[in-house]
Amino acid sequence: MKLLKVDSLEQAREKILSHVKSWHLKKEIVMLEMARERILAGDIYAPDDIPSFDRSTVDGYALIALDTAAAGEAIPVYLKQVGTVSMGEPAGLTIRSGECVYVPTGGMLPEGANAVVMIEHCESLGANIAVYEAAAPGAGVALAGEDVKKGQLFLCQGTLIRPQEIGALAASGIMSLPVFVPLKISIISTGDELIPPGQSPRPGEIRDINSYALKAQAEKRAFTVISTQLLPDDESRLETAIKEALDGSDVVIISGGSSQGEKDYTEKIMDNITRPGVFTRGLALKPGKPTILGWDEESQTLLAGLPGHPVAAMMVFELLLGWLCDNLFELTPPFQIPARISCNLPGTPGRAVCQPVKLRMDGEGYSAEPVFGKSGMITTLTQADGYIIIDLNKEGLKKDEPVKVQLFN
Amino acid sequence: MKLLKVDSLEQAREKILSHVKSWHLKKEIVMLEMARERILAGDIYAPDDIPSFDRSTVDGYALIALDTAAAGEAIPVYLKQVGTVSMGEPAGLTIRSGECVYVPTGGMLPEGANAVVMIEHCESLGANIAVYEAAAPGAGVALAGEDVKKGQLFLCQGTLIRPQEIGALAASGIMSLPVFVPLKISIISTGDELIPPGQSPRPGEIRDINSYALKAQAEKRAFTVISTQLLPDDESRLETAIKEALDGSDVVIISGGSSQGEKDYTEKIMDNITRPGVFTRGLALKPGKPTILGWDEESQTLLAGLPGHPVAAMMVFELLLGWLCDNLFELTPPFQIPARISCNLPGTPGRAVCQPVKLRMDGEGYSAEPVFGKSGMITTLTQADGYIIIDLNKEGLKKDEPVKVQLFN
Repeated sequence: MKLLKVDSLEQAREKILSHVKSWHLKKEIVMLEMARERILAGDIYAPDDIPSFDRSTVDGYALIALDTAAAGEAIPVYLKQVGTVSMGEPAGLTIRSGECVYVPTGGMLPEGANAVVMIEHCESLGANIAVYEAAAPGAGVALAGEDVKKGQLFLCQGTLIRPQEIGALAASGIMSLPVFVPLKISIISTGDELIPPGQSPRPGEIRDINSYALKAQAEKRAFTVISTQLLPDDESRLETAIKEALDGSDVVIISGGSSQGEKDYTEKIMDNITRPGVFTRGLALKPGKPTILGWDEESQTLLAGLPGHPVAAMMVFELLLGWLCDNLFELTPPFQIPARISCNLPGTPGRAVCQPVKLRMDGEGYSAEPVFGKSGMITTLTQADGYIIIDLNKEGLKKDEPVKVQLFN
Repeated sequence: MKLLKVDSLEQAREKILSHVKSWHLKKEIVMLEMARERILAGDIYAPDDIPSFDRSTVDGYALIALDTAAAGEAIPVYLKQVGTVSMGEPAGLTIRSGECVYVPTGGMLPEGANAVVMIEHCESLGANIAVYEAAAPGAGVALAGEDVKKGQLFLCQGTLIRPQEIGALAASGIMSLPVFVPLKISIISTGDELIPPGQSPRPGEIRDINSYALKAQAEKRAFTVISTQLLPDDESRLETAIKEALDGSDVVIISGGSSQGEKDYTEKIMDNITRPGVFTRGLALKPGKPTILGWDEESQTLLAGLPGHPVAAMMVFELLLGWLCDNLFELTPPFQIPARISCNLPGTPGRAVCQPVKLRMDGEGYSAEPVFGKSGMITTLTQADGYIIIDLNKEGLKKDEPVKVQLFN
């Protein structure tokens, strides 16, 4: 692989976007109960005011604020109680100056009233109520539309639906909503040495990690995994498998076979069977250099040849395909944990470094401790809470330098 | 509600734990493919070394390190190539001093070899190989067991299974594993003013948010929601519903009816039908004061009467029941984002304050901006990224004071 042709992470991302911009992102309607963790595919405007009527926020007496102007802890104002509002019922009456009505928390404010004084500041004297507090207009009241106004944009396209969004949608009576259809992904893991994890390796063989780990990564993101398969480094079988995967997939991942060895067929096959074909031949990223990206215009499929080493494969998946989901579906980029690096950490000239780290609470802040390991070691990732990226123009990090840690969520 | 009887968050948590410690947490065996996001219910020891044999980490020549001691960029050492290792095959030969064998990345190291020199630092001269680099013992080699040693504890009980854990389990050939069975929860939402969200409210009525929002919260945690229902404030119907829920549930949530109004029946019913019954009558938390907690020894059920206001209900759920899951299943507590508060924020004497915040990147760090809103407003939570807790002994926060933000994940 000639180093000059290698793309930076940013270049590779731009090229991916320039191709997938022709995708028509599909939407589907789901029931509210099924919408959790889906991504909203459209802006939601409030169909009604929430609340739909002026409500009391306390147990107390609804009244006209001006009537209480002279009231205080020592000298009450006396108002005539002309009724009681029941929860869930229309207030059904109008008050005039000098009058009040009992309203429970959440109860509807009667016509004419503009404040509610808490029961703790009142005294019932039969037909009259002594009010010991001067209320400002609006005190103790949630006005119609104060939470959400009818017609207001209240949830934007690209919102990840959390429990509170489920709640807000329920409050608006929105019982079904548009969400993005996940991207379809096929995962092919290749390597003569690989065996299905359920089998016992003979000398020279190792169990296939990538089809399992990448599938789990894809499922965490907005992908539907439509197939996983394990193949030997056999050019014609690989070519057939990739061709077949192109049809039903938005993205085809081939892990392994992306280096420049004699049995590394990914680049060759992508050159052969896709048009315009390969657009990135190597990434300026450590780990992750042997990454091949291509585009097949006819089937509108993105192809990604990932390194065979599990850590490298997972990091490239995260940085290119996880990132692609966030970008396409307009998700808010994830928050990163500010921390300080626990030791000097060299960079790699001309390559960005993706370094797994463990976070430890250290005094008032977090310390990010690099988890080192040879590139094939999956325990590098099981011991890590997240990762940092050292920019390709940076010589390295000095102990205690601030870093931003992206969690493996 | 008498303020003196109110529990702090910590007191309530301790009391909850003291009761639920008699729960026998159930385990179940799931297939590896189904284990993502489940919680490991047992320690996993490595059944085999990973890798199971000494492997090359580069394409190059396997040799005896000592043989290359004199090699350098200008003056090579000449070794006799006695074979080639194929991927996935036993090396099947032994090398002696003066010999080398070609090994691809991931290939098995032949007997006798203890280092691999990259092909870039070698030159093939027919039967002999010129080696231009002095190799240290172990260079270019991943030793058997270097990633994971046979018998080593490599995943602990309480591990949340992420894609990398799926990968590590696959690498070990662990195709099924013990995970905790989620806790069973029943959710009852009560209020005369509440209608199912699919209906149109008449004056005085509002749509039920809590059974939807709390269900979604429970599903994010290790709970299985076995029922949700909406009931009016009718003592006998509520009592029947709670009694029925006790049988099949580990936790019964009743939202609404937990204040001291005449139609607030939760505390009374819990006192009537459970033994030893109510142990917390009010929380020193804002929002969340009207929270009633109880225990029914016979059915081994935790009962939680939550405030009817959605924001308060969701926060108390998070702080008591979400916390309970993390604690019971020994999960690592979630990471919090260090930030600075964007404005002065008063505390509430004698009560901890749970304040929703929005995070903004502000120079090098995050600024946490409080999202204010009356307690019934669900948009307080949809606009927030997370929350902070102001300790009940703290008068408040000064602008720019450091805070830790717990994300609503």
